[in-house]
Amino acid sequence: MPVNLAAPDPASLLPVAGVRLGIASAGIKKPGRRDITLIELAPGSHVAGVFTQNRFCAAPVTLCKQHLHGNEIRALVINTGNANAGTGEEGLSRARQTCAAVAQLFGCATENVLPFSTGVILEPLPIDKILPALPAAQADLAPGHWSEAAHAIMTTDIVAKGASRKAQIGGKTVTVTGIAKGSGMIHPNMATMLGYVATDAAIAPALMQQLVKEVADVSFNCVTVDGDTSTNDSFILIATGQAGNAQIADAAGTDYAALRTALDEVAIELAQAMARDGEGATKFMTINVAGGRDRAECKQIAYAIARSPLVKTAFFASDPNLGRILAAIGYAGVGDLDVNALKVWLGDVLVAENGGRAASYTEAQGAAVMKEAEITVRVALNRGSVDATVWTCDFSYDYVKINAEYRT
Amino acid sequence: MPVNLAAPDPASLLPVAGVRLGIASAGIKKPGRRDITLIELAPGSHVAGVFTQNRFCAAPVTLCKQHLHGNEIRALVINTGNANAGTGEEGLSRARQTCAAVAQLFGCATENVLPFSTGVILEPLPIDKILPALPAAQADLAPGHWSEAAHAIMTTDIVAKGASRKAQIGGKTVTVTGIAKGSGMIHPNMATMLGYVATDAAIAPALMQQLVKEVADVSFNCVTVDGDTSTNDSFILIATGQAGNAQIADAAGTDYAALRTALDEVAIELAQAMARDGEGATKFMTINVAGGRDRAECKQIAYAIARSPLVKTAFFASDPNLGRILAAIGYAGVGDLDVNALKVWLGDVLVAENGGRAASYTEAQGAAVMKEAEITVRVALNRGSVDATVWTCDFSYDYVKINAEYRT
Repeated sequence: MPVNLAAPDPASLLPVAGVRLGIASAGIKKPGRRDITLIELAPGSHVAGVFTQNRFCAAPVTLCKQHLHGNEIRALVINTGNANAGTGEEGLSRARQTCAAVAQLFGCATENVLPFSTGVILEPLPIDKILPALPAAQADLAPGHWSEAAHAIMTTDIVAKGASRKAQIGGKTVTVTGIAKGSGMIHPNMATMLGYVATDAAIAPALMQQLVKEVADVSFNCVTVDGDTSTNDSFILIATGQAGNAQIADAAGTDYAALRTALDEVAIELAQAMARDGEGATKFMTINVAGGRDRAECKQIAYAIARSPLVKTAFFASDPNLGRILAAIGYAGVGDLDVNALKVWLGDVLVAENGGRAASYTEAQGAAVMKEAEITVRVALNRGSVDATVWTCDFSYDYVKINAEYRT
Repeated sequence: MPVNLAAPDPASLLPVAGVRLGIASAGIKKPGRRDITLIELAPGSHVAGVFTQNRFCAAPVTLCKQHLHGNEIRALVINTGNANAGTGEEGLSRARQTCAAVAQLFGCATENVLPFSTGVILEPLPIDKILPALPAAQADLAPGHWSEAAHAIMTTDIVAKGASRKAQIGGKTVTVTGIAKGSGMIHPNMATMLGYVATDAAIAPALMQQLVKEVADVSFNCVTVDGDTSTNDSFILIATGQAGNAQIADAAGTDYAALRTALDEVAIELAQAMARDGEGATKFMTINVAGGRDRAECKQIAYAIARSPLVKTAFFASDPNLGRILAAIGYAGVGDLDVNALKVWLGDVLVAENGGRAASYTEAQGAAVMKEAEITVRVALNRGSVDATVWTCDFSYDYVKINAEYRT
């Protein structure tokens, strides 16, 4: 079950001026399942995205990248139940047909539409089911349908994921609202995820790509469930510019800082929600590696711990098998790491230093920390001043069950 | 249960002239468990090893590397139940004390002894139990005790692992016999493993290090269970020189080829046995990647498939969820990989080409292959002429169970 995570109160997901969302059921995988989401953007909106680096990227990812290149985006269309990945030229054609059908409904060009798919890989996208459902999704469009959309984009997620913040920018109140889905095949870049964060703040187009990358780097690119990088991961940032603030044009000043804080908070809350709702999760783990020479080595070590099946099964068992954490640090690939110089804490308990178990450590201390549902592992490398944090979950019987039975 | 793997018939493990093995019980983890193995080598034996690249390498690994540097090796001492890893200076001291005690029994110097430990990490090595058990192990020394040793070095292994071959070298019959243990925290370099292969062939000392690396590269460094690289992995090659062949001094000629074949066959059989007996294994998987530009990229892709929890759980479920294989190929990190040029086979069934599912593929074909206990995945990259093979097992409920309950 998800760790300290409930679906957001629909009222807590604030409308973003210039964004409307509509849901429909195409019956892609199950009859009656609400599996189609349309997101309509007001004219003048700016959109940027970051996408999976998987070479087998899905057809919709390829199209998204093409359409984001110089076209104003007016609509997003998302389906669950089929990833349209590993589908070759025919997959591209079907994703394009989906965009064209949406474009016809919205009176824009195919290139003004971004497509997203999530679900089973290597199956043809059933456009015979998707296209007829689009008018119903359009008819459902409303500014208040963020919660409905958060539910409609779920696959193996147990809990819908959404978050909102308000910020003051140049005397205007701006809103940031985001939704996302996990929850398997989660590892950056990106996690197996779809994430959409929209704000009504006015942001210069030239700043959008940098902004979406920076926000992803502290949020969606800091989470792992199983180390598998999906074919479809997409994180989209939308700025409708309807809040009336003076356009933010560069990454400096208090306006930018206020915006970044709100965007980061929403994206981090969504990213953490993916780990909390990771497949089979019973524990939420935060891995913080500090004192590194650069962020890359800190992330490398944090991910080695967060990905290790041995560490994750020990956390599932509430077993303070700290040696597995040390082993993961040791094989992370930081070649000149001095293991005698580093320290490791489990919660607030110092567990390792001088290349071995801390003299003050007792098994009872470790066992007490491991009983908690939320556990932080801290590593101090003592060779620099940079840190990184990664979130993950444990590895349970249910992870195997969910993934062994996914298609049955 | 291990996949098509039984403990070797003791009579099939051939004695190697110049090698004697003795077993004893120190009660390290369980009273009565035979957990100490001594291997005595005749004077004039040559020994080389390859070891874990984990920065948190265990104390015995550190000592092995020191002792192999310019010292004749006369004895090996192996304990299970405790890895003596993450134990700092005190761990080194205890490993050295163990070597010193063995040296006293054998009338040699501490530096003539190699120590090995496997088991729980981060716990002090109980030399108060180990040292008193050494005389019994010495008293047990016999050339025919390979099978007993194969059993005594097991940890979570279900089945003992051993293999023998004979080869004709320069008119003399030489013997190669090896034993190894797995079976969790298995990923090169090295797998979590201890492997010992001995031959009575005469091999020049200068050739030994190259030989042990080459044999490891096609055997122990081609197997993964969970992607975790252990702190203690060690593979030791012993050549006693008692067979009477003319010393093999370089890596050329028919003598070398015959020796390599015998050594490779023994090491590969042991390495495959580790995957067959991987924790919780129900399927044995061979991942062959061909047509690559170099061996590194072939191994990278083979390991991405072999490590993926999503691929491994699908194999456990006998589910031909081929998309997960494609996804793993895609995120393996070969940046310029053309996914439209590659082909993938499951057994003999072509499942993917042209960036998607093969037109000829049917789910029934895939399902038939997945029912087998031994499954080969073949990938043709079509960009070069090099190939690599990796062996692994599936990922089952029992993997989680074994690793969640390991210390309880």
